[in-house]
Amino acid sequence: MRIARCADEDSKIFWAAVDPEGQSVRLLSGALNDWAPQFTETRDDSTLPFNGITRPLAGLRLLPPVEKSNKIVVCGANYAKHLMEFGVKPTSQPVAFLKSYGALIGANDAIRYPPTTKQLDHEVELVAVMGTFSLDRANPLASLLGYTVGNDVSARDIQRLGPAGIGLDLFGAKSQDRTCGVGPWIVTLDEFTEQQPRLGLRLRVNGDLRQDGNSGDMTWSIAELLNFVDERSSLEAGDILFTGTPHGVSDATGNFLKRGDLVEAEVEKIGVLRNRVE
Amino acid sequence: MRIARCADEDSKIFWAAVDPEGQSVRLLSGALNDWAPQFTETRDDSTLPFNGITRPLAGLRLLPPVEKSNKIVVCGANYAKHLMEFGVKPTSQPVAFLKSYGALIGANDAIRYPPTTKQLDHEVELVAVMGTFSLDRANPLASLLGYTVGNDVSARDIQRLGPAGIGLDLFGAKSQDRTCGVGPWIVTLDEFTEQQPRLGLRLRVNGDLRQDGNSGDMTWSIAELLNFVDERSSLEAGDILFTGTPHGVSDATGNFLKRGDLVEAEVEKIGVLRNRVE
Repeated sequence: MRIARCADEDSKIFWAAVDPEGQSVRLLSGALNDWAPQFTETRDDSTLPFNGITRPLAGLRLLPPVEKSNKIVVCGANYAKHLMEFGVKPTSQPVAFLKSYGALIGANDAIRYPPTTKQLDHEVELVAVMGTFSLDRANPLASLLGYTVGNDVSARDIQRLGPAGIGLDLFGAKSQDRTCGVGPWIVTLDEFTEQQPRLGLRLRVNGDLRQDGNSGDMTWSIAELLNFVDERSSLEAGDILFTGTPHGVSDATGNFLKRGDLVEAEVEKIGVLRNRVE
Repeated sequence: MRIARCADEDSKIFWAAVDPEGQSVRLLSGALNDWAPQFTETRDDSTLPFNGITRPLAGLRLLPPVEKSNKIVVCGANYAKHLMEFGVKPTSQPVAFLKSYGALIGANDAIRYPPTTKQLDHEVELVAVMGTFSLDRANPLASLLGYTVGNDVSARDIQRLGPAGIGLDLFGAKSQDRTCGVGPWIVTLDEFTEQQPRLGLRLRVNGDLRQDGNSGDMTWSIAELLNFVDERSSLEAGDILFTGTPHGVSDATGNFLKRGDLVEAEVEKIGVLRNRVE
C-alpha cells in the first residue's frame, strides 16, 4: 500500500492511501501516530481509520510524508564508493545528524536555490519511516511503517566551511529551506520481502543519469542504522531516516545543479521525486 | 515578564505568565505562535490571551519552554576560553547544529544518564527564543521573545567518536534523550536593556562552582548568531537558539558528572535550572 500526505486546493492537509492504479486516494482520519503504531504492529489494513471519502489524486499536492513534530535524521558515509568521491576513508561508524523540517519539499515542489551557495548537489536516498511508538532494537525493521524516497540536496561549499577540529557544516549544507524532496508516498513494509531490500536508486538531471546505485550496497544495513540512531536519540512513529547516498554526486564532477534543472530521484518499487530547481 | 510552559497534575500543558513574586501563574490560551508574534512586535502585555485563570505555581511542572513542532539550534565555539579547553583553535565562523526535542527536560526534571557514555558533561548557556514569524535580519534582536537558560549536557566520549574527515558526533553527544535542561521560563526581552546583554553564567555541581562566565564574552554576538543560523535554516516563532558555553566544563578536568549529582545552571536575571543526574 502507498500512504501519502496530501494537501488539497484549500490547503487542507490529510493522510490518504493511494489506490493501486494511482488515480484516486482514500482519506485517513487523524495524525500518523493515531494510526501508524497499531497498523505497524498488525500489518492489518482494517486497523486504518478510513473516513469513507475518496478523492481524485489529480489536484492534490503530495507533501513530504512526515509531520512537523517529527524528527528527520540523515545517515551518511553508508556507501563506500560515495565516500571515495569525497576522498574520505571508510569510517568506523555511520554518521548521523538532524535536518530541519523547513528543508523538506514534496514530490513535485520546486527546489529553492539558496543564495549563499554556488555548489548545489543532489543525493538520492532510500528513506525509512518509523511506525511504532518506539524502536524494537532486537528487530528494528519490524518497527518500520515503510519506505519512501529522499533527495538530500546539499550545498557543498557551505558544507566544507565547517571549522577544523569540529567538522563539516552539515546543518548549513543540508538544512537549507525548501531544498530536500521526500515522497511521493510511503510504501508499506509488506511490499518489501527482503530484510535489507535490494532496490535500485537512480538520479537524473534533465534526463541524464547521474547516480545509479543499489540499497544492497550499504555499508551498514537499515537495521544497524536504526539502532545506531536510536542509541543517540530515540525514534518514534513518524520519524524518518535517510540512509545514505550512492556515488555519482555533482561534487565529484563539478557538475552542480543549476537553476531550471529538472531533478528526478527514483527508488525502485517506491517512485520518483520530480523537482525543478527554481 | 516571565513566561513559562507548565504541566499540571493531570498532564494538561499550557503557557502562563509567572507573577513577580513567583507564587502564582496567569494562564495563557493557545500555542506560542498564536500570541508571541503580536506580542513581540508590540511588546504590549495587553495583546496576550490571558484566559482569566490564576493558579498557584506550586504543584505545576515547569516544562522546557519550547513546543515539539519547533526546532532547537545549538551554536558552539562561541567563547574563546572554552575552545582552548578542547585544544581547538579559534574558528572562522560559529558552529551550529540541531538538537532532538526528546533531549529536553524542564527546570527540575532528572537528567537521564545515557548508558552509552562514561563522560557526561555540563554546559550552561544563554538561550534566545524567537518571537516573530521570521527573523528580521537587519535587527535580529527585535525578533526575540526573550531569553531562557540551557544546560547543553554532552556525552564527550561519544562526541569524539565522529569519523575523521567528517567531524565530531554532535548528534550522539548532544541529542541523548532527557539530558538537556531548558527553563525555568522565558524572561521577555524588555527586561534586558543592552543589545548584547552582559549576564553572568554560572554552573555548580553539588554546590561546587564549575563554570563562571559572562555572555558579554561571546565571540559572535547573539545578533550575529541569529543571522548565521537563519542563513542556513530560517528561524520562526518558538524556535530556540543555544548561544555557546563559557569555559569550565568537565572535559577539561576529567571531573565528569556522576549519578546523583545536583547540577545547577544559572543565568543572571533569568533563573536557575536545578537538575539531578538520575
